Amino acid sequence: MPNAPAPSSFTSADYAARMKRAANAAAEAGLAGVLIAPGPDLVWLTGYQPTAITERLTLLVITREQTPTLVVPRLERPDAAASPGASALEMVDWTDGTDPYQTATTLLLANGTYGISDAAWAMHLLGLQRALPDTRYRSLTDSLPMLRAVKDDHELARLAAAGAAADAVYEEILKVAFAGRRETDVAADLAALLRLFGHEQVDFTVVGSGPNGANPHHEAGDRVIQPGDAVVLDFGGLMYGYGSDTSRTVCVGEPSPEIQSVHDIVKRAQQEAFEAVRPGVTCQEIDRVARQIISGAGYGEQFLHRTGHGIGVTTHEPPYLVAGEGQPLVEGMCFSIEPGVYLDGNFGVRIEDIVTVTSDGARRLNTTSHELRTVS
Amino acid sequence: MPNAPAPSSFTSADYAARMKRAANAAAEAGLAGVLIAPGPDLVWLTGYQPTAITERLTLLVITREQTPTLVVPRLERPDAAASPGASALEMVDWTDGTDPYQTATTLLLANGTYGISDAAWAMHLLGLQRALPDTRYRSLTDSLPMLRAVKDDHELARLAAAGAAADAVYEEILKVAFAGRRETDVAADLAALLRLFGHEQVDFTVVGSGPNGANPHHEAGDRVIQPGDAVVLDFGGLMYGYGSDTSRTVCVGEPSPEIQSVHDIVKRAQQEAFEAVRPGVTCQEIDRVARQIISGAGYGEQFLHRTGHGIGVTTHEPPYLVAGEGQPLVEGMCFSIEPGVYLDGNFGVRIEDIVTVTSDGARRLNTTSHELRTVS
Repeated sequence: MPNAPAPSSFTSADYAARMKRAANAAAEAGLAGVLIAPGPDLVWLTGYQPTAITERLTLLVITREQTPTLVVPRLERPDAAASPGASALEMVDWTDGTDPYQTATTLLLANGTYGISDAAWAMHLLGLQRALPDTRYRSLTDSLPMLRAVKDDHELARLAAAGAAADAVYEEILKVAFAGRRETDVAADLAALLRLFGHEQVDFTVVGSGPNGANPHHEAGDRVIQPGDAVVLDFGGLMYGYGSDTSRTVCVGEPSPEIQSVHDIVKRAQQEAFEAVRPGVTCQEIDRVARQIISGAGYGEQFLHRTGHGIGVTTHEPPYLVAGEGQPLVEGMCFSIEPGVYLDGNFGVRIEDIVTVTSDGARRLNTTSHELRTVS
Repeated sequence: MPNAPAPSSFTSADYAARMKRAANAAAEAGLAGVLIAPGPDLVWLTGYQPTAITERLTLLVITREQTPTLVVPRLERPDAAASPGASALEMVDWTDGTDPYQTATTLLLANGTYGISDAAWAMHLLGLQRALPDTRYRSLTDSLPMLRAVKDDHELARLAAAGAAADAVYEEILKVAFAGRRETDVAADLAALLRLFGHEQVDFTVVGSGPNGANPHHEAGDRVIQPGDAVVLDFGGLMYGYGSDTSRTVCVGEPSPEIQSVHDIVKRAQQEAFEAVRPGVTCQEIDRVARQIISGAGYGEQFLHRTGHGIGVTTHEPPYLVAGEGQPLVEGMCFSIEPGVYLDGNFGVRIEDIVTVTSDGARRLNTTSHELRTVS
C-alpha cells in the first residue's frame, strides 16, 4: 500500500461534469437549482475547501440555466479562485457590512424550490428565507439524496485504496499489546497506523473494551483493557480525499462462549446482508436482512442502530441502510454494512465492511477476516 | 505560563446558571425559547460536545417554562449523560428509523418564535419547519447576539491565559529563522509553540510573506521567505476551552520605507481604536475609528475587512466590529481589534490584540510590542 501510486487529481473538467450532473438532477427532481455550502458538497463539486466554515456566507448556486456561480466573501475570493473547479465558475463577492443574502438572491428565482446542503448554516438559510419569502428549500438529503451516492471509477479507486489501507492497519493492530494498556493507547496506535498507511485525516478511532464496547458511540477512554475483554475496534478517515471505515471485534485471549456466540451471530448477519446486496434491492431490505438474523437469535433489542451508511468524500452520507428507506441500490453506490449487538454493562460486537454495488451483486472494499481474532 | 495552574472546571451549577440566563434572555427578547445545536453554544451551555456533528438530530430546547431538555439519538445518550451539565437537563431520545423532528416538536409551541444556533444544520431547521409550519425561527446572532458575549471572571481568566500563551509564542517565534524557509515551516513552529505553551487546539497559523501577506485569508504556503519581506503572523486556538487570536507583522531584516510607513499607520489605527473602547460606545464606532485613520492615510480601499470579532469558546463570534453594528459595548465583552492594509502583489500588514471592555475603558489580553520587529 505505501508503494501504490497516488491517483491523479480531479481536473477542472471533472468538476464541471459534476456541476452539470447536479444541475440536471435538480431539474429532473423539479428543483429550480441547488445551493451548496462549504463542506463535502462544495469539495465534491468544485474542489474548494475554505480555510474555515464561518458566519460569512459562501454559497454555490447551480441551476440548469446559468453558469454555476459562487457567492464568496471578497477576502476569500483569491482562495476560491485558486481551487481546481474555479474555471467552470463565475464568482460574485461581497464585503463586510453589506448584506450577502441580497447578493445571493439576485441569482435565485423569487418563487422557486431549491435543494440546499444539509449542513448549510441555519443562519444562512434564514437569511435567504427572509430575503426571498416565497422561495422554498429542501435539504439535499431530502431532495437529491443520491447526488454523490453513485461513485465513478476514479472515486471507487480512491475508496478501495482507503479501504486497503484500513485493512493494513487492522493486520498491524493485531500485533500490539492490548491487556494492561488503556483504550486511548490503542486508539493512538490506530491513528498513527492510519497516517502511516497513507491517510491524510483520521476521523475516528473507537476502542470499546469490555462494557465500553456496549456503547456503540464510545470512542476510547481511560479504561485499562483486561484479559478476556471483547474489544470493538472501529476506525477510519480520509485518504486522497475519500473515506475508510471498518470495524472488527477482537478478544484479549480466548473468548468466553457468550462472546463467541454473539460474534457468530453478528458475523452471519453481516454476511447475509452483504449477500443480499444487488442493484434494485432497497436500502431498507439490507437493514431488514441483518436485523432479522440478530432478532431471530434473540438480540433484536440490542442492535441499537441502522445497518449502514454511505461513504465518499465524507465517512457518513446517503444512502442510509435503515427501516423506511425505500431507495433502490444502484451500481457504484458505496456504503457500510455494520450490524452490531450491545449488551449493556457487559460487551459489544460489531463487524463492518465498506461494500460497493456491482452489476449483479456487491464487492467488499474491506477484506480482512471476519473470524474472531485474539490479541494479547 | 507553563507553570500557571489550570483553572478549575466549570460545574454543573455553572452550566445550570448559563441555561437559566439563556432562558431569561430569550423571554426578554420575546422568544418562546432557544434551540441549541451541537457546537460552541451547546458546549457553553452544557459542556457536552458530541464526538461528531452529524445528520442525526441533537437539539437542546431551553425555555423559561420547562426544564432544559436535550433531544438526543439513543446511541449517543450515554455520552450526553456523562457531560458536566447533564444533571440540569432532561433527555428525550430517539432511534434510527423514527422521526426526530416529531420528537422535538412535542417540546415546542406550535406558533412560537425560537432562536436557533447559527450553525444548526439547514436540514434540521427544515425538518422543524415542516413538522410545525407555524413556528418561526431566528438565528441566535440575529435574535440573541450577546448571549455569550459578556464574559464572567472565570471566562476572562481563561481568555487571559490563552492570550498570555499566544504572547509567549510570539516572543519565541521572533528567535527562529525566517529567510530561506517556507511559510509552512514557520507555521509548523507556531503550531508546536502554541501546544508547548498550553493550547489543546490550534485553529490557525497564518504566515503571509511578501505578496502572500496581501491576501488577508492566506494561511501558509510553499513560498520561501525572502530577505526584506514583510510577514503577517496571525495565530490562535483554544486553551482550557477558550480562544486566543493575535497578529503581528514582522520584517525579515530592515524594513523598506513603505513597509515601515504602512506599519506605522496600522499601528496608529489599532491604538486609536483601542482607546475608543468603553461601555456604551457602539461596535461600529470602533470600526469607524480604525477605518478613518487608514482611509485618511490613503489606504481605505486596502483595508479589506471589518475591524474585529468576539472571542470566547470559539475564535470567531459576536460582537462584530463592523459598519452597521449598533450594539453598544458592555463591560466583560472580549473581541479582537485587528486593522490591516493589503497591497495587492506587494505585502500586507495587520496588528491584532484581543481586548476586554472594562468599567471605564479597555484592557488588552495581548501585550507584546506593536513596534515593527525584525527577524532573521
